[in-house]
Amino acid sequence: MTIEFAKEILQGSQLAVSRVITWLENEDERARACMEKIYSHTGNAYVVGITGSPGTGKSTLTDGLTWEMRKKNLTVGIVAVDPSSPFTGGALLGDRIRMTRHSSDPGVYMRSMATRGALGGLAQFTQEATKVLDASGKDFVIIETVGVGQDEVDIMSVADTTCVVLVPGLGDVIQSMKAGIMEIADIYVINKSDRPGADQLFSEVTYRVQQDVHLRNRKWVPPVIKTIALEGQGEDDLLDAIMTHRKFLEDSGEFLVKRRNRTRTETLQMIHHELFQLIMNRLSENDQIEKMVAAIMEHKLSPYNVVEQVVSKWLPGSK
Amino acid sequence: MTIEFAKEILQGSQLAVSRVITWLENEDERARACMEKIYSHTGNAYVVGITGSPGTGKSTLTDGLTWEMRKKNLTVGIVAVDPSSPFTGGALLGDRIRMTRHSSDPGVYMRSMATRGALGGLAQFTQEATKVLDASGKDFVIIETVGVGQDEVDIMSVADTTCVVLVPGLGDVIQSMKAGIMEIADIYVINKSDRPGADQLFSEVTYRVQQDVHLRNRKWVPPVIKTIALEGQGEDDLLDAIMTHRKFLEDSGEFLVKRRNRTRTETLQMIHHELFQLIMNRLSENDQIEKMVAAIMEHKLSPYNVVEQVVSKWLPGSK
Repeated sequence: MTIEFAKEILQGSQLAVSRVITWLENEDERARACMEKIYSHTGNAYVVGITGSPGTGKSTLTDGLTWEMRKKNLTVGIVAVDPSSPFTGGALLGDRIRMTRHSSDPGVYMRSMATRGALGGLAQFTQEATKVLDASGKDFVIIETVGVGQDEVDIMSVADTTCVVLVPGLGDVIQSMKAGIMEIADIYVINKSDRPGADQLFSEVTYRVQQDVHLRNRKWVPPVIKTIALEGQGEDDLLDAIMTHRKFLEDSGEFLVKRRNRTRTETLQMIHHELFQLIMNRLSENDQIEKMVAAIMEHKLSPYNVVEQVVSKWLPGSK
Repeated sequence: MTIEFAKEILQGSQLAVSRVITWLENEDERARACMEKIYSHTGNAYVVGITGSPGTGKSTLTDGLTWEMRKKNLTVGIVAVDPSSPFTGGALLGDRIRMTRHSSDPGVYMRSMATRGALGGLAQFTQEATKVLDASGKDFVIIETVGVGQDEVDIMSVADTTCVVLVPGLGDVIQSMKAGIMEIADIYVINKSDRPGADQLFSEVTYRVQQDVHLRNRKWVPPVIKTIALEGQGEDDLLDAIMTHRKFLEDSGEFLVKRRNRTRTETLQMIHHELFQLIMNRLSENDQIEKMVAAIMEHKLSPYNVVEQVVSKWLPGSK
């Protein structure tokens, strides 16, 4: 049954893609068998990340970039994630209404998701949904995410090229550039560049990029691209910049290094996640968790004693 | 040696507190022995969380609230965390300069920290730093954190009373109230309430709170408090509201439920963290991780196979 879905994904069925992504979203066990089947067919799609604060026009930009890719006959999968909405997924849906022009195009698949409470769950979901789209034969996968915090940095670790979107007059750029952004940005996009302050923002970002490149002796100099996504201007330049970065990664050997690092991180995360599931399952038997908690609350045990007991029981010889 | 530090913490030494929090921050092994010693002396401090978007004046408000507590001769520990700055800790430091009026007061201890990349590391750090301050005899611990994403929700799980700070004219309140905020807020603070739009914001928040209380049949109705932290106005009302919430929790039995849930979460996290560390240590021997990654890159194994191998080797009988 799940093997059928794996086959259909490999044949490019959007229906099968949807189904399996829903399983991933719901942490449905059936996803696993399917992911195992398709794994060896992944690694072909090029993954582009688009991130920026709310209000920078990421959705419109993603839409325009998708359009440019389609003009070159490239197929596109889009995963839009919103880590800032842990409980309700409403925020992105409004934006998504704009993307109607691709909705009847079989060369484009779009899926959005807001965070649930899961520890590190969103980054893992993004990773796996990306793999499904990759296996389904999409040439590009675009990951779009709101914000510039640790969640977004984790999510963006899946991307080959990360684009950070800024707009003139929206908050303190210097502060947001502090927040880990310079570590992950391969390309800067100044969207809404017809607004006042665009030239100043351009100069400021260019200056900081040069400083950073010099300081850390980086080989890639992130370009700063101006766009007006609402009017469809500049997305062609953005796609060119992405292609140039891709060539740089491939020629310099960094592409392989990046992918190896990602495989390492993914595998360790999966072990991490699996362990937690096992711990929960085992400790749930016979109310063990509740007994432990009661003993701690009565100060008969400390959590440290409990950890030691559990670990020495489960991983003997570990100390 | 570390036992000496534990003793000194229990006697209220700020120096020992600083030292051990630094160990926690650096994941220094010496912290563990100390935390074990002090654990049975924790649970006395009342923990207040203060969260809100950047620019809402949380630091000034924390400062004012601390002042109100000091007027009642209550001692205060403050842990300020900034999950939005994963790589540099600069953002908060500027704010912190304001807190000088407490710097010579032995009844106040203040510590700030910005995120490192650690998986779930910041919430755990906050938890443990809170326990150190608790054991050192502080009556209150205030946890201050920037933002309203999943990181902040995790951090705030340590608090007995969570205050969410809003200001008029700063972005879309409806959106930020969607973002999990209503699930964690025990008290809303409208800071900078002399600004235009404060009354409207007050009405809007009050309305949504009533809706939420009705919808989910909640027993506690979160009050909406107006403050002007820069002028020291309203912090007395805020402290009153915190005290009222505390009394509500204690009288209704929810206090015990909350603390029990927190103990459960903490213990499970510690077990998870410890097991993962141990397995990582084992996998680091003989370059095992790199061998696994190479096999995955060559499509000889999938990460799913690797997870299964690792788990069944180290936690036999788990399936």
